[in-house]
Amino acid sequence: MAPKILICETLDWAHQDLQDLLGSIAEIIHLDSPSRASFFADCRPGGKYDGVVGIYRENESAKKIGKYDKELIDKLPSSVKWIAHNGAGYDPVDVHACKARGIYLSNTPVAVDDATATTALYLMISTIRYFSLGERTLREGKWRPEVKARAHDLTGKTLAVLELGGIGKRVAEFAHAFPMRIIYHNRKRAEDAPDYCEYFADVEEMLHQADMLLVGVPLRKETEKLVGEKWIRALKPGAIIVNIARGKIIDEEAMIRALEDGHLASVGLDVYPNEPEVNPRLLEFPNVTLLPHMGTENQDTQRKMEVRALTNLRDFILTGTGTDLVVEYKGGQVKT
Amino acid sequence: MAPKILICETLDWAHQDLQDLLGSIAEIIHLDSPSRASFFADCRPGGKYDGVVGIYRENESAKKIGKYDKELIDKLPSSVKWIAHNGAGYDPVDVHACKARGIYLSNTPVAVDDATATTALYLMISTIRYFSLGERTLREGKWRPEVKARAHDLTGKTLAVLELGGIGKRVAEFAHAFPMRIIYHNRKRAEDAPDYCEYFADVEEMLHQADMLLVGVPLRKETEKLVGEKWIRALKPGAIIVNIARGKIIDEEAMIRALEDGHLASVGLDVYPNEPEVNPRLLEFPNVTLLPHMGTENQDTQRKMEVRALTNLRDFILTGTGTDLVVEYKGGQVKT
Repeated sequence: MAPKILICETLDWAHQDLQDLLGSIAEIIHLDSPSRASFFADCRPGGKYDGVVGIYRENESAKKIGKYDKELIDKLPSSVKWIAHNGAGYDPVDVHACKARGIYLSNTPVAVDDATATTALYLMISTIRYFSLGERTLREGKWRPEVKARAHDLTGKTLAVLELGGIGKRVAEFAHAFPMRIIYHNRKRAEDAPDYCEYFADVEEMLHQADMLLVGVPLRKETEKLVGEKWIRALKPGAIIVNIARGKIIDEEAMIRALEDGHLASVGLDVYPNEPEVNPRLLEFPNVTLLPHMGTENQDTQRKMEVRALTNLRDFILTGTGTDLVVEYKGGQVKT
Repeated sequence: MAPKILICETLDWAHQDLQDLLGSIAEIIHLDSPSRASFFADCRPGGKYDGVVGIYRENESAKKIGKYDKELIDKLPSSVKWIAHNGAGYDPVDVHACKARGIYLSNTPVAVDDATATTALYLMISTIRYFSLGERTLREGKWRPEVKARAHDLTGKTLAVLELGGIGKRVAEFAHAFPMRIIYHNRKRAEDAPDYCEYFADVEEMLHQADMLLVGVPLRKETEKLVGEKWIRALKPGAIIVNIARGKIIDEEAMIRALEDGHLASVGLDVYPNEPEVNPRLLEFPNVTLLPHMGTENQDTQRKMEVRALTNLRDFILTGTGTDLVVEYKGGQVKT
């Protein structure tokens, strides 16, 4: 009997890819539980999801069945062995609950890198050149703001990358085309860092030299408010922060204080602590660029992500593992 | 006696550079005529600008003395031999009147390339990713527009560059970092084109293959409305036009028709036919990005441009010529 795979929320782009990748090796079931309660009922022995071994999930499913928190993970059929999350950030899935239940969790790194790094590049240009303010001024019928004395070129400036993962490296490639000077901090030196990226073991030493800080840290308990008062103040006066990772990585109050007193010239944000809420105080600063979490919002990248998540399921079925196991599984097997 | 140099409008950034470059070899006079009429009076024999051999000018001076049209050029002191225009586009100066009077005209290419190409890159990202619309949606309190199905990545798309000059080559460097496929048309093959840029002798053949068209043609009589109905319709359906050159290069009515009927998905514009006026019909398209001619509006590039223009004057005084003579002088001397 073919293993059962549950597609938890609809695929937007990869319908044919789903058939190509899994059609011949799995029985595909689509989520049709209208609520969290009915989902739980359908997960019980004898329910329609009983026997499912792999789940494809994306954040959209939260609208129907809520987050993949401990409660949900614990109620999944005991047959489930793999959750293929569509997205780089997997904070909506309780990875510890997965490990405790012997379920593997994969995400979709690499697939998101290009689009998210392009978003970072856009925010870098917009903030240092005052372009968002420029367009708003034009649309208000006032032509051009007087910003020449405050705006700068990216070329020759120093970009600090925190941290240099897949997205950070892609941003570094773009920044190198100017070129900018690129410095970075990871917990340890990135072995595959391009030779034009300079490693700093000491975060604050790096921040002292930065005209611009790119925040690219995944959200975990220990990274919440990682970029707080102390690190923000370690940046050069007039520095810019760009965040394309998760809103909660930055202490928003500390960031707003630094915008108010001018220590930060600007921020470029794609992410916020409580999306879709945006702190209204952010809207009061004339030169901040605020995107509504659009890092991967385009069909080319969405399809790449869907295919990557489905490929993890395929690999799991065929080989017992997938390439994108999240970092919490590194160096140790889950109990299955 | 040191040759007289007229600084026609104030320098914003290069005060020290002015002293360093010209202080010891020229007598520096600053424009202080409050009107065009008084400027003409001061240009007469015995007037305070009599004997000036070189002029530094920037567009800001038009607010006091108007454009450098034939009337103004003809009234300049007969001693004037060189006008160092600050800017890449020199359409505000009547080059034919200059030639007729035996006056050389230089501009500031190279100095503008990086900032203008960065502006193009911003417009390319904003339009293909719907970011300008995204930020407006967020600022209206409506979070995120549903654009996933229309937005794309730049990576892998085809960029047509018209034409591959200094700015176009810099854009090509940025686009190559993704990479995009880069195709271009110049009147003849650019000898210094990077090997990743593919030449098309036939414009329309190039346009048929383009997802995005970058307009980088200088404005001359023969380039007005160069990008008209026929060329716009030669682009792929759903293509995007980015213009960082001059508004008049594009037939605006033809462009608006193509936006209306959906042949063009978007346009990203930094320039308009009658700046600072912006055709209000452009504001009605949700996904266009409209900057108020900010291509070089930042202090790093402004200073580079001022220094480059002053260096042309210095070179003229010391050697009788400068490196940035505009193209109309190529292959022939003016009568002096």
